[in-house]
Amino acid sequence: MQQRAVFDQNRIQALIAIYRDGLLEDTLPFWIDHCVDRERGGFLFALDQDGTVLSTDKFIWIHGRFVWLLSTRYRTVEPKAEWLGLAQHGLDFLRQYGFDTDGRMFFSVTREGRPLRKRRYLFSEAFAVAALAAYAKAADDAEAARQALEVFNLIIRYATTPGLLEPKVIPQTRPLKALAMPMILTVTAQILRENFPSREGVGVGALCSEWIDRSIAEVERDFMTEEFHAVLETVGPNGEFIDNFEGRLICPGHSIEMAWFVLHEAKYRGNDQRLRDLGLHILDWSWQHGWDDQYGGIFYYRDARGLPCAEYWHDMKFWWPHNEAIIATLLAYHLTGDDKYLGWHKLVHDWAYAHFPNPEYGEWYGYLHRDGTVSTKLKGNTWKGPFHLPRMQWYCWKLLEEMALSQ
Amino acid sequence: MQQRAVFDQNRIQALIAIYRDGLLEDTLPFWIDHCVDRERGGFLFALDQDGTVLSTDKFIWIHGRFVWLLSTRYRTVEPKAEWLGLAQHGLDFLRQYGFDTDGRMFFSVTREGRPLRKRRYLFSEAFAVAALAAYAKAADDAEAARQALEVFNLIIRYATTPGLLEPKVIPQTRPLKALAMPMILTVTAQILRENFPSREGVGVGALCSEWIDRSIAEVERDFMTEEFHAVLETVGPNGEFIDNFEGRLICPGHSIEMAWFVLHEAKYRGNDQRLRDLGLHILDWSWQHGWDDQYGGIFYYRDARGLPCAEYWHDMKFWWPHNEAIIATLLAYHLTGDDKYLGWHKLVHDWAYAHFPNPEYGEWYGYLHRDGTVSTKLKGNTWKGPFHLPRMQWYCWKLLEEMALSQ
Repeated sequence: MQQRAVFDQNRIQALIAIYRDGLLEDTLPFWIDHCVDRERGGFLFALDQDGTVLSTDKFIWIHGRFVWLLSTRYRTVEPKAEWLGLAQHGLDFLRQYGFDTDGRMFFSVTREGRPLRKRRYLFSEAFAVAALAAYAKAADDAEAARQALEVFNLIIRYATTPGLLEPKVIPQTRPLKALAMPMILTVTAQILRENFPSREGVGVGALCSEWIDRSIAEVERDFMTEEFHAVLETVGPNGEFIDNFEGRLICPGHSIEMAWFVLHEAKYRGNDQRLRDLGLHILDWSWQHGWDDQYGGIFYYRDARGLPCAEYWHDMKFWWPHNEAIIATLLAYHLTGDDKYLGWHKLVHDWAYAHFPNPEYGEWYGYLHRDGTVSTKLKGNTWKGPFHLPRMQWYCWKLLEEMALSQ
Repeated sequence: MQQRAVFDQNRIQALIAIYRDGLLEDTLPFWIDHCVDRERGGFLFALDQDGTVLSTDKFIWIHGRFVWLLSTRYRTVEPKAEWLGLAQHGLDFLRQYGFDTDGRMFFSVTREGRPLRKRRYLFSEAFAVAALAAYAKAADDAEAARQALEVFNLIIRYATTPGLLEPKVIPQTRPLKALAMPMILTVTAQILRENFPSREGVGVGALCSEWIDRSIAEVERDFMTEEFHAVLETVGPNGEFIDNFEGRLICPGHSIEMAWFVLHEAKYRGNDQRLRDLGLHILDWSWQHGWDDQYGGIFYYRDARGLPCAEYWHDMKFWWPHNEAIIATLLAYHLTGDDKYLGWHKLVHDWAYAHFPNPEYGEWYGYLHRDGTVSTKLKGNTWKGPFHLPRMQWYCWKLLEEMALSQ
């Protein structure tokens, strides 16, 4: 018999301690102690489990993420000069070495800032907007705000102008679009709206809300499919289902992240019922596809038809889907009071905390086999840096504080 | 105590039966029964474990591989009209839909042959050369021979002209070169030389041998590193070691494949001692890095310094490194009589045959977890098709027949 989850002040305070202390005493110190490049500027995110640098190549998009994190902590947790100083340290590097002459951004650069890779995606740009906006608010820096809006407009231009970004698959044969784009637009617009100084940005809030509405509507209309009860990663331009490996791909952690972007928007709009139901819908579907009943944890990829995935590592357990699911389930419970979400929150929280943390050196491992054993022990690489874990710790801590007050 | 491997006529005949019958009664029938697209031409390689089609996208480079396989079987195993007919069926599709207007080839096309992807690598072209050359010899087709040479020359032009292929990493900042290129040139030149009709190709044999020499010398000079006793996947233009994730990467199965290309060349040149020692050297190093003492099998990736890999699926066991290692160890034993290689051959043969075959539907699974359990059950996708397994079965069968005669 399943035990009914109890969510009283004791449980709330215990969870607050886990998330808050994890953020302030583990995650942030791990990165601040090891990743700051005091000689050449910017951050070194490719770290071994103990913080040893594994590569000095610098990943622009993670710079944006960390500057956003530091600035937001400064504004919402404590105005520590160290945090704002480090945010500025990262932003200086981003501004000096992150941009190509066309206004777009590089994906990675050398330790000295010479460009290594520029990709066909807009991740570097999106997280630069988040960084600039959060820094603008934290430091009351009008120039950063102006630049945040400028890069946001560049993203919109690239996202809405066919042909500007060369797609992987030849679009004359098979035009495709990815869930990542409306997701990026949603969260970037949410961050920009939250941080834009009101005196500078007449109309910016409305612009952001408009792009949030458009993006969420696009996900609902084109990426959600009743046939498979799933949010697809890749569809045709009008939501056409592509019946191949790519078109059938579901990334439950990714769509669960979208679920909480939508729930967050519902909350922002005073628990908007339509948005809330949509977010729950996405969460329910994604959980059904994603949760591994045998070993626990969330699968990385699933096939919408239940066919084999072409990606041979599809059944691995990555850290970030668990971070997103911990946020999404807690937020769903907060907005609904439905014990189902409390149960899911406990399931994914307990599984994640039983498998990912590395007490010896701090922070979390990122990559587990299906059965929960560690595959590679590094703490940072091209994709993993100080983002999903500390964002979860911060978001859940702050949400639980709200919940504690309202109980 | 390790049992000394015994390699007498009984063992040789038993292995011949495994490889030959596996090829003729399992691998070839599996693909021929399921992958031939009689309606639209060409082959459908994306197959589930039971042969069900998972995607109708067509992978050009695997077309080249299968046409090479069918043509070579026709020539060296049995002149079955079915095999040559299927080779022609595949070649017709390759010729009609595989080429872009610039002479380069696509990587994948739709079922109807419309281009989907063109990549920055020359894999499609290399296997087209193998296909055209093997078909030319099997069918005595001068036009195919001419075209094989034409595409081979295109590969050389692209491989030796900086800037023609846009690299992933910006070359003004960090010029890199990949082990794949000299490996492709080696094996493609070997196949072209073996198949080129002598009356058509005055000088072609010499041209091929020259490129084989150059390519092997490049691997020896630039990719082999005494410091790590390893063959690196990526180095600077003059073999400079790049101390990051990419530069430290070893793919033991890949370098073991190179080992047997070199051993094959040694054998072709009358057991050339220098080439033989070089091939053994590569095999010894790669085996030390690659063999998993805990679970058995060959790791996919290793880090030259023993640091964590950035690729989270680095410890998986793929089918093809085991195919290459079965060839390399048998060939090493054949050329040296050294029991060490016989022991390794037995180790990798036994491990592979205990974990990869799927008796119910035939053929091999491709992707196992580190512990040997199956990760995804499909038999074919963008990368897996009728190549490494049947090449191993054919090569080892023919080699064992030679060994049986010489005992």
